Amino acid sequence: MNKLAKFLRALESYHITDGEKFTLAQHNPDDDGSLGLSKEDGAHLLREVKEQLQDLQELLYANQTRSVLIILQGMDAAGKDGTIKHVMSGVNPQGVTVASFKQPGPTELQHGFLWRIHAAAPQVGRIVIFNRSQYEDVLVTRVHPELLENEHLTGPVNTPEFWEGRYKDIRHLEHYLARQGTVVLKFFLNISRKEQRERLLSRLEVPEKRWKFSSSDLREREYWDQYQTAYQDAIAATARPYAPWVIVPANHKWYARLVVIGTIIRALRNLQQKPPQPAPDVEKCLDDYRTHLLNEKS
Amino acid sequence: MNKLAKFLRALESYHITDGEKFTLAQHNPDDDGSLGLSKEDGAHLLREVKEQLQDLQELLYANQTRSVLIILQGMDAAGKDGTIKHVMSGVNPQGVTVASFKQPGPTELQHGFLWRIHAAAPQVGRIVIFNRSQYEDVLVTRVHPELLENEHLTGPVNTPEFWEGRYKDIRHLEHYLARQGTVVLKFFLNISRKEQRERLLSRLEVPEKRWKFSSSDLREREYWDQYQTAYQDAIAATARPYAPWVIVPANHKWYARLVVIGTIIRALRNLQQKPPQPAPDVEKCLDDYRTHLLNEKS
Repeated sequence: MNKLAKFLRALESYHITDGEKFTLAQHNPDDDGSLGLSKEDGAHLLREVKEQLQDLQELLYANQTRSVLIILQGMDAAGKDGTIKHVMSGVNPQGVTVASFKQPGPTELQHGFLWRIHAAAPQVGRIVIFNRSQYEDVLVTRVHPELLENEHLTGPVNTPEFWEGRYKDIRHLEHYLARQGTVVLKFFLNISRKEQRERLLSRLEVPEKRWKFSSSDLREREYWDQYQTAYQDAIAATARPYAPWVIVPANHKWYARLVVIGTIIRALRNLQQKPPQPAPDVEKCLDDYRTHLLNEKS
Repeated sequence: MNKLAKFLRALESYHITDGEKFTLAQHNPDDDGSLGLSKEDGAHLLREVKEQLQDLQELLYANQTRSVLIILQGMDAAGKDGTIKHVMSGVNPQGVTVASFKQPGPTELQHGFLWRIHAAAPQVGRIVIFNRSQYEDVLVTRVHPELLENEHLTGPVNTPEFWEGRYKDIRHLEHYLARQGTVVLKFFLNISRKEQRERLLSRLEVPEKRWKFSSSDLREREYWDQYQTAYQDAIAATARPYAPWVIVPANHKWYARLVVIGTIIRALRNLQQKPPQPAPDVEKCLDDYRTHLLNEKS
């Protein structure tokens, strides 16, 4: 068995399809798959599988029957932007859209929290990547419930029933998307608190990285444990066979990227798509059309 | 008890909140409430309650906490357009939007059937009226399943599980909207087959009404029984306390309009909204502001 096949098989262990059995603390951010791969091997493998991703994306686009929604979540500096850059560059941008969900603005706050999310859901044949997502509404607002005051809500908020309602609404939207033919893949880029410290420090120390640093990163870091709890609860409540979570060991960037791209490739392969047949009228007249074009006066 | 109070109480019998017990055939399209009202009394009452609707809508708009989604469904010539015109005219259009859902176009067909629906859901403080709605996707496509070929669907379609999936998706969206503070009211304008014949005939005979006639109205009329079954099933599957159906006896237009406006008024009254308090900083300085404005140099 070659390295790639072995690697793809190993991905299984990161898939969570039954949230009830999920414990975040059991997932090791330092895991590198124990495949004996070096950072350089990893970079080589990434180049190799990127070509496969390009081919599979073309089939997705050509067939116009399925679509893919990729959700990226993680703490600050977990590598969301880098993952998008390194995994999706090279894929035809006509078939891929990235939607970044920042703090909701006034118009968005006038609607339910899923309004902007549903609007950005992929059309057939496309891959859409959510850089942050509907999960922020059960993560950042869970850790900072005072943010709920910006939303025009009615009834009791920040109660167990309130959060259970949001988890349910998220599950239902994802189930609907899956029924419509969208493959929903949710990635949690799992870094350790120590690794985040290193990365934030390097943002300060390397002048070209400084623009990425924000003082709010340090403020949010104080809430590390609360965020871990919020992630634990959100993943447990929303990991389902129709919308699995993938817990990506993300302390090693090269490995995290491989896990993400490998998961996407596996999911696309499972669709078993082939180049679509030409339209019946084209099929019937292949020779006629060829003759017509060859005899065309220049 | 005055006529209005008596009338509002009688509306109860048209509300379906538990679909399992629903039988469309038990609802009489000729019902006029047996309140001894003439057509003229009805028109008078409509003018009276319209003023109440205007006041209640202003409170909804001012409070910015709740919203209302009104869904209008019915066979051709059941009175959807007329109901919107006669019930909602006079209400401040800044607070009311009508969204008409015609046959989906190419862009809409590239997304799931609820994409355009969710996008049109009301923002806080607003009333949105759906002239036809997500229910077309379990009515017209149920009666003409060949239309499903236009959608980019995957897996088996037009099976009992397929329709159950759509009912579920619709219930879930409505439940989410309700949780967000939207009052969801769904009206089925229930006319008899005979009454539809009269109305279509009059569209042909009265020159000013001819533009409303379409040959497809006659074609769809052939499917009357299939539509009744589709409505029965859709209403049974989606009438819930958080999103009730109101079966409006619609052979008498004047009565249908009263039932619709009465139901909306009852729902708005139940919100028990009051004029909001001025912002605390305004409240504190009422006298200062008054003095300031009075002393302003002209």
